[in-house]
Amino acid sequence: MFWGFCAFTSRVISELSQPCEIPGRQSGAGSLAYTRWHTDQPIAAHHPVRLRQFFHHMTYCVAVKLKAGLVFLSDSRTNAGLDQISTFRKMIVYEKPGDRFMCLLSAGNLSISQSVREILQVEQLNDHEGGEPITIWNAKSMFDAARVLGSAVRHVYNRDGESLKRAGVDFNVSMIFGGQVKGEGMRLFQVYSAGNFIEATPETPFFQIGESKYGKPVLDRVITPDTPLDEAAKCLLVSMDSTLKSNLSVGLPLDMAVYEANALKSDKITCIDDNNPYFQMVRRTWGQKLREVFDSIEHPTWDGSPTDVPLMCEGSGRSQPLRKISTPKDKLI
Amino acid sequence: MFWGFCAFTSRVISELSQPCEIPGRQSGAGSLAYTRWHTDQPIAAHHPVRLRQFFHHMTYCVAVKLKAGLVFLSDSRTNAGLDQISTFRKMIVYEKPGDRFMCLLSAGNLSISQSVREILQVEQLNDHEGGEPITIWNAKSMFDAARVLGSAVRHVYNRDGESLKRAGVDFNVSMIFGGQVKGEGMRLFQVYSAGNFIEATPETPFFQIGESKYGKPVLDRVITPDTPLDEAAKCLLVSMDSTLKSNLSVGLPLDMAVYEANALKSDKITCIDDNNPYFQMVRRTWGQKLREVFDSIEHPTWDGSPTDVPLMCEGSGRSQPLRKISTPKDKLI
Repeated sequence: MFWGFCAFTSRVISELSQPCEIPGRQSGAGSLAYTRWHTDQPIAAHHPVRLRQFFHHMTYCVAVKLKAGLVFLSDSRTNAGLDQISTFRKMIVYEKPGDRFMCLLSAGNLSISQSVREILQVEQLNDHEGGEPITIWNAKSMFDAARVLGSAVRHVYNRDGESLKRAGVDFNVSMIFGGQVKGEGMRLFQVYSAGNFIEATPETPFFQIGESKYGKPVLDRVITPDTPLDEAAKCLLVSMDSTLKSNLSVGLPLDMAVYEANALKSDKITCIDDNNPYFQMVRRTWGQKLREVFDSIEHPTWDGSPTDVPLMCEGSGRSQPLRKISTPKDKLI
Repeated sequence: MFWGFCAFTSRVISELSQPCEIPGRQSGAGSLAYTRWHTDQPIAAHHPVRLRQFFHHMTYCVAVKLKAGLVFLSDSRTNAGLDQISTFRKMIVYEKPGDRFMCLLSAGNLSISQSVREILQVEQLNDHEGGEPITIWNAKSMFDAARVLGSAVRHVYNRDGESLKRAGVDFNVSMIFGGQVKGEGMRLFQVYSAGNFIEATPETPFFQIGESKYGKPVLDRVITPDTPLDEAAKCLLVSMDSTLKSNLSVGLPLDMAVYEANALKSDKITCIDDNNPYFQMVRRTWGQKLREVFDSIEHPTWDGSPTDVPLMCEGSGRSQPLRKISTPKDKLI
């Protein structure tokens, strides 16, 4: 059976959502988090060990497909528990200039995604007996290339899935794969642990994997298919900044690739670390100006003083102010 | 055994994180999501039904503790699957003017949180034999009141926990509880499914429950213990706006309560619906100005044209630009 993958990552994070000390110490909330793990998992005493065995990316990767091209951005934080954090880069670029450009971003269990990446280069799909096998190097469409990627994921599942399952680890990997093959337009896919995938459309021009929520509001506000490439690149960096600010499990350096439609190659590939002048400027300016905008918005008034935008006002039938409960006998409803 | 609660809600959302059609239809990604559920859960065929049986709040509630007072904000969206969405308000205010003010926000399984709320009013803690039982109405501290709340949660667990477990549903409830009792300062707690709790401190002056991530960046940037009450109220509304914009499972109307330190009562309690002039203004202004700030930030340059803040630059030793893979034989590392 091939299905049944619920994110290991998200479970770990959810386990940690009660602030806790280092698992294994028997004190306070820490011991509770520890105990909670026990009841979820058969391998009772091995929780901290197991966490460390399985590096995974609770990363943040995002890619957009615009009329003008594609933009990819990934961080490089990988962790196996909060006390074991490493740097692994999550972007990989395949390019035969003039023929094809592809970019792969990955999140999830690191051993799985590294294996997939290793296999992808040589993975072959045999659609027809005797026909030429399809690889990412000869695929006539990005759709076929995504099928090759799906096949690579399934190969890793066939090799490691059962053993991971015995160890209590979900087969968890999540990827964004996009690019262009000569002869067709650009395409952008999100590929799941089962090797199946979905494609970006004008209505949903971006995909995120990993820790996607902190950085989603600015994408929702800015990105449309008509957004210019540089503006989209800026937007992705702002989105990454919000994520970095709120989540430890995402970290520098970043990899960014910008692909212009029909170029069939890209020279706009860069690695952004702490010292990058542009990213430093974006982080500083965005933070400062966000604060200025916030300050420029009128405060709510509560005392009935004149305002065009009162906060206290008659609600409609279903939006009456809450009744207070003042005695043990008050009815709630 | 009392522990072992991993969020039903988060599991449902994670199940749905592959875009899917209505579960049960055997097509495309939908059938995959359906199948995934099967392997996680023993009750194979009942997934859609089970979802509907258990309304839960994938809500967003947030509260801050400032030197100047407390601010509470909650939405009212409750859902049992994406196709069954209802409105239940998640705030409740307990007040004996001049003696105590308390506010409770809840997220998680609706049947659990409603039961907790029902019980809380009359819950009694017996610390010493023959001593007067402690209730939220006579507790001498908010800490004791939080213990009463924890005890109410445990009562509901004792009543429903086993049955929920048999039905494959985690005992999932999460609450924020804060206020002031005459004779001590204000206090703010986050209470977990196990009835244990943590308290806000100057370093961490706010708690969020439910869908907390979209709205966290603005809190991280604005809230400190010195933030004035009205500014904090505004900040919580901006935080809610970001969450509403990015997540279907959070919805209007909102309940807001603002408590001034040592007042031991509050008149600043309001319900905010679609027509609220202040919230309309915040949403409009924040969106517009965010866009203006975004537009005011310089675009990245890629062609070496002169700029004070280049994006492409020599990385340090560990931050070299990615090597491209151009043939099946290229080495990744």
